[in-house]
Amino acid sequence: MKTEEVTPIKIEKTTSSRIGQVDFDKLVFGSVFTDHMFVCDYVDGRWETPQIIPYQPLTLDPSARVFHYAQAVFEGMKAYRDDNDGIWLFRPDENFKRINRSSERMAMPVFPEEYFFEGVKTLLKLDEEWIRKGEGNSLYIRPFVIATEPSVMASPSNQYKFVIICSPAQSYYGGEVRVKIADHYSRAASGGIGYAKAAANYGAQFYPTSLAQKEGYQQVIWTDANTHEYLEEAGTMNVFFRIGDTLLTAPTNDRILDGVTRKSVIAIAEANGIKVEVRPVKVSEIIAAAKDGSLKEIFGSGTAAVINPVAGFGYGDEKFELPKMDKPYASMIKKLIVDIQYNKAEDPYGWRYKVE
Amino acid sequence: MKTEEVTPIKIEKTTSSRIGQVDFDKLVFGSVFTDHMFVCDYVDGRWETPQIIPYQPLTLDPSARVFHYAQAVFEGMKAYRDDNDGIWLFRPDENFKRINRSSERMAMPVFPEEYFFEGVKTLLKLDEEWIRKGEGNSLYIRPFVIATEPSVMASPSNQYKFVIICSPAQSYYGGEVRVKIADHYSRAASGGIGYAKAAANYGAQFYPTSLAQKEGYQQVIWTDANTHEYLEEAGTMNVFFRIGDTLLTAPTNDRILDGVTRKSVIAIAEANGIKVEVRPVKVSEIIAAAKDGSLKEIFGSGTAAVINPVAGFGYGDEKFELPKMDKPYASMIKKLIVDIQYNKAEDPYGWRYKVE
Ligand SMILES: Cc1ncc(COP(=O)(O)O)c(C=O)c1O
Ligand SMILES: Cc1ncc(COP(=O)(O)O)c(C=O)c1O
Repeated sequence: MKTEEVTPIKIEKTTSSRIGQVDFDKLVFGSVFTDHMFVCDYVDGRWETPQIIPYQPLTLDPSARVFHYAQAVFEGMKAYRDDNDGIWLFRPDENFKRINRSSERMAMPVFPEEYFFEGVKTLLKLDEEWIRKGEGNSLYIRPFVIATEPSVMASPSNQYKFVIICSPAQSYYGGEVRVKIADHYSRAASGGIGYAKAAANYGAQFYPTSLAQKEGYQQVIWTDANTHEYLEEAGTMNVFFRIGDTLLTAPTNDRILDGVTRKSVIAIAEANGIKVEVRPVKVSEIIAAAKDGSLKEIFGSGTAAVINPVAGFGYGDEKFELPKMDKPYASMIKKLIVDIQYNKAEDPYGWRYKVE
Repeated sequence: MKTEEVTPIKIEKTTSSRIGQVDFDKLVFGSVFTDHMFVCDYVDGRWETPQIIPYQPLTLDPSARVFHYAQAVFEGMKAYRDDNDGIWLFRPDENFKRINRSSERMAMPVFPEEYFFEGVKTLLKLDEEWIRKGEGNSLYIRPFVIATEPSVMASPSNQYKFVIICSPAQSYYGGEVRVKIADHYSRAASGGIGYAKAAANYGAQFYPTSLAQKEGYQQVIWTDANTHEYLEEAGTMNVFFRIGDTLLTAPTNDRILDGVTRKSVIAIAEANGIKVEVRPVKVSEIIAAAKDGSLKEIFGSGTAAVINPVAGFGYGDEKFELPKMDKPYASMIKKLIVDIQYNKAEDPYGWRYKVE
C-alpha cells in the first residue's frame, strides 16, 4: 500500500556532471556510474530521511559488519527510453518485493515501498540524460543494502545503508556462451540463502566458475547440492531447456532466485502457444535429449541480457553442441519482451511502469 | 618459506592515543579498536607496500565488489600478555594458512607470509599497551580481506584490501548457553564454501539464529544440509559431545571450518588420556544418549571463548538439559589450553608464538 504522502527526499545536486566524459558506445558493464546516488540510513530502528547526493565514495568503519559477515543484499533492474523519450521500468514491484524478501533472510530491515519508488524515480529524473534511446541501450539500476554498524560481533547489525547507483548499459553480447554443468561444486544449500539476492551467493561462485573458464566455458549451470542430478540455475540467470517444442525450467525453491525475467518468459511463451513445463529437470534427460537430437535450445534469462542463448555445454568430460535453429524460441521470446520494455508493443500484462 | 628480507612496512603513528577513553573492565566484544590498523592494497596483480596507519574509516566506491558480491574473508586470533609482560600468539601459522585457503575459495589472491607475520607483530608492538595482563584479558586480532574494485560486474575483483584491526577483549561469559539443533535451515552446502572463513557464511546464519533465539536458545548447531541427520558445527564454534568418557566431534569436510581450537582440543584431550572419536556424529545418537543418561557434556570450541559449555539443547519440540558435572572435560581442557596461551605451562606442542 502506498501512502499519498510525498516522500521527503533531500536532494543535493552535483555541480559538474561527468556525462561529457563518457563514451556511450564503449561502455563496460557496471563500471561507469551516473552523477547521483540515492542513500538512506537505518539507525535506531528506523530509516532516516532519504537523500540524493552526488555520486561519491562510502566511508565506513573497518569493523562495519558488511565487510566481515556479508550482511548485504541487492537488486538489478533497468530503465529504458522509448522513441518518444518516455522512460520506463520493467516490473519494478517485483524487484521491490524481492529486495525485502532478501533482506528478511539476511536478518536486515525491510525498506519502505514509498522510499523505494520515490527514490528510483527521483534519481532517474535527475540523471535522465544518462538513459539513451535506441534498442539495447538502458540504464542499469543497482539498489543495495549493507550492514554498517562498527562492530565485529557476529550478530545482525543495528545500522544499515540503503543505496541506489545507476550505470548506463549497452546491448550485451558476450560472444557464444558455453556452460559447464556442475557436478562437484554448488551454489546453494537447501535451507540456505540461494533464493535471496544476497551478496553472499555471488562471491561463492567465482572460484568454481573460474575453473570452468579454464576448461573453455563461460558459465556454470548449478545443480542441486545434494545429488547434482537436477539442473537449477546459472550464475546470474535462470535456465530454460527446449526439448522438441516444449520449454522446461526448474520450479523455484529455497535454492533458486525467483527471476523476474524467468516469470516473464514463462508468461510470454505460454501466451504465444509454447508449452512450458515448470518441473525438476534432470541432468540425465538433458544429456539423453542432446544425444537423440531432441534438445533444441538452452538459454538463460536475466535482467542483464534478457535472454542469453547457450551454444553448447559440458558435463564431466563430455561436450555437447546445440543445433543452430532457424527460428529459435530464444530470439522470439526476447523480442516479445524487449518490445514491451521499450514501449514498442502492447503490454497486456501491465509490466511496464512509467517514470514521471 | 620465509624470506630473510625485512618487510618494508610504512608506519604512520597516531598523534593522540584513544586508550585513555577506554574502560577495560567494561568491554563489549568487538566494538573498541586500538590506535592503529594494518592495510595493504592489491593492485595490478600484486600486493603493494604494507602500511600501518592510525585507525580510521575505509573509503570505498559504492560499486566496490565486496558490497555486492561478498568477496571477503577474515580471520580471528588473539594476543595474550603473560605475567612477565611477554606477548604471545597461539598457533598464528594456522590462521595464516587458513586465510589463504579461504581466499583461494573466494577467488581472491593469497597474502604473502612475511607481510602477514610482520604486519601482525609490528601492529602488536605499536599497540602493545592495549594488551592487558590477567587471565581472560586478550587482544582480539581481526585480519580481513575485501574486494575493492569499483565495478558491479559479477566476476572476481582485480583490487583488494588486506586489513588488520585489533580489539581488546575480556574473558567472555555469555551466561548459560542452550543450543537448537537445525532441522530445516542450513549453513553450508556440500561443494560450497562452509570450510572457508568467508564473510558469506556468517550473515546467512543470522536469521535462522534469530528464530532459535525467539525460542529461548542462544545458538544453532548446524546439521548437514542434505539430511539434517549429522551434527556439524555451531555458528562460530566447532562442537564436541561427551558420551560416557569419550569425546565425539565431526571430521572436517568442505562444509565445516577447520578450527584451530578444535585441533588443539583433540590434541590436548588425547595427551591427557581422554578418548576422542573424530567421526560423523548422528543427531539420533546424541538424543538417545541424552535420554539414557550417557550424554555428559556438549561444548563448543573457538578462539573467542576457547571452550563454551552448553547447558542444554533443543531438537524439534523436545528440550534436553545436560547434567552438571563435577569435573567437566570442558573446564579441564580449557585450563590446559589457556595455560599454554598465557605462558603458564609448558608448551610441548610448540603452539605459542612470541611477539618480539
Ligand atoms: C542467481 C540469479 N538467478 C537469476 C537471475 C535472474 O533474475 P532477473 O530475471 O530478476 O534478473 C539473477 C539476477 O539477475 C540472479 O542473480
Ligand atoms: C564457523 C566457525 N566454526 C568454528 C570456529 C572456531 O575456529 P577457531 O578455533 O579457529 O577459532 C570458527 C571461528 O572462530 C567459526 O567461525
